Amino acid sequence: MWRVAEPTVERLIQYLRVVEAFKKEGRYLVSSQEIADAMGIKATQVRKDLSFFGEVGKRGVGYNVSKLIDHLRYILFPSKEQKLAIVGAGKLGGALASYSGFEEDKGIYRVVALFDNDPQKIGDEIGGIKIYDIKDFHDIAEELDVRIVILTVPASVTQEVVDHILSTGRINGILNFSPVTPIVPKEVVLYNVDITTELKKVLFYVRQKRKRKKKKDF
Amino acid sequence: MWRVAEPTVERLIQYLRVVEAFKKEGRYLVSSQEIADAMGIKATQVRKDLSFFGEVGKRGVGYNVSKLIDHLRYILFPSKEQKLAIVGAGKLGGALASYSGFEEDKGIYRVVALFDNDPQKIGDEIGGIKIYDIKDFHDIAEELDVRIVILTVPASVTQEVVDHILSTGRINGILNFSPVTPIVPKEVVLYNVDITTELKKVLFYVRQKRKRKKKKDF
Repeated sequence: MWRVAEPTVERLIQYLRVVEAFKKEGRYLVSSQEIADAMGIKATQVRKDLSFFGEVGKRGVGYNVSKLIDHLRYILFPSKEQKLAIVGAGKLGGALASYSGFEEDKGIYRVVALFDNDPQKIGDEIGGIKIYDIKDFHDIAEELDVRIVILTVPASVTQEVVDHILSTGRINGILNFSPVTPIVPKEVVLYNVDITTELKKVLFYVRQKRKRKKKKDF
Repeated sequence: MWRVAEPTVERLIQYLRVVEAFKKEGRYLVSSQEIADAMGIKATQVRKDLSFFGEVGKRGVGYNVSKLIDHLRYILFPSKEQKLAIVGAGKLGGALASYSGFEEDKGIYRVVALFDNDPQKIGDEIGGIKIYDIKDFHDIAEELDVRIVILTVPASVTQEVVDHILSTGRINGILNFSPVTPIVPKEVVLYNVDITTELKKVLFYVRQKRKRKKKKDF
C-alpha cells in the first residue's frame, strides 16, 4: 500500500482521463510525451509517476492504452462500483443528480439516491434518481449499499445532517458543497468544494495580474 | 504589490470568513488563537500571515474585528463590486444563479447575467437573473460591465465558448465547471472546479484509509 500525496493523486486521475480520451480516438499506444502534452506537464513527470506504480512504457513504443487504463483504475479505485447518495435535493443537488460528467465514470461510482427533508420533494425523481426522506437514511443507505455522500444542504444545517448520516456508521467519504466545513471523525474522508472560495481566488489573481500589467506599462 | 502563493490566498479568504462570523456574533475583538481554532491551524500562522500584510494585533487584546475585515477585503478584492456572468444556463448554471452562498459576498461580486444558446431559454430568468443569447455576449458584457465568467457549458463546446467570450477582450477571469480545461492566453486567470476529480479523490482516500485500517487490525 502506498501513501500518496494529493497532487500525485490528481495527476493519476488526469492521466486516466487523458488516456481514456486517446482510447476513444482509437489509439492503441500512447507515449509519455503525448500524455504530458495533453496535461501541460513534463514527460519525465509522467514516466516517474507511472513507473512508481509499476507501469513502465517501452522506450520508443510507449504505453499500451488499454493496459494503462486498467492499471490506473486498479491503482485509483475499488474494483466494485461505489454507490453514492446526494443529501440535499435543492437546486445544486438536483443539478448534480443529472450531471452529465458523472456518466463518464460509470463503473467507478454511481449516484443511486437523493435525500431531503421536504415532504413536497420526497418520492419525486430527478434524472431518474429517487428522492428519499432523510429520516430513512439509515435503512436506505444500507439497502442501496451507499458509503459515500455528496452533501448539498444549506450551511445552517450542515453539521446536524453530517452527524445524522455518520451515525449510521456506514459512511466513510463526504464531498461537501456547503460553504461550512463540518467536523467529522478522522476515519471519515472529507473534501470540500467551496465555490465561493474558488471565485474569490479568481478575483484576487485577476487584480494581481492587472496590477502587474500596469506596472509593466510604465 | 505582493506575489502571493495560493495556499496563503486561501487562508486569507478563510480569515475573512471566520472574522465576519465573529462580527455577526457581535464580537468587537478577536485573538489570533480564536481565528486559528476556528480554522484548525496554528495561531503563529495567523499572526505571521496577517503581519505580513501589515495587520498587527495587540498582545493580550487581539485584533479589532471591523478593522480586520476592512483590511482583509482591501488586501483580497477590488474596491468595486465585480460583475459576473454565468455562461451555460443548464441545470448547474441555473443552480449557481440562485446559489445562496453568493449572497454572503455581496459587495465583492454579483452575478448579473446568464448566457445560453437555447432559444427556449433566452429571455427567461433564473433567481431574478436574465438569460441572454450567447451571440450577444460582446454587447451585454460591455453594457453590464462583466469581466469574470462562471462557465457551465457541456465539455464538447467548452473551448469554442471560451474562444468566443475571450474575443471580446474584456474577460480576464474564468471559473470553469466543465470537466475539460480550455486553453486560455496567460493574461486570463482560469480556475477549474472539477467535481468528478474531487469525487475520485474521495474514493481514492477512502480506500487507502480502509486498507490502512485492515493492516492495523492484524
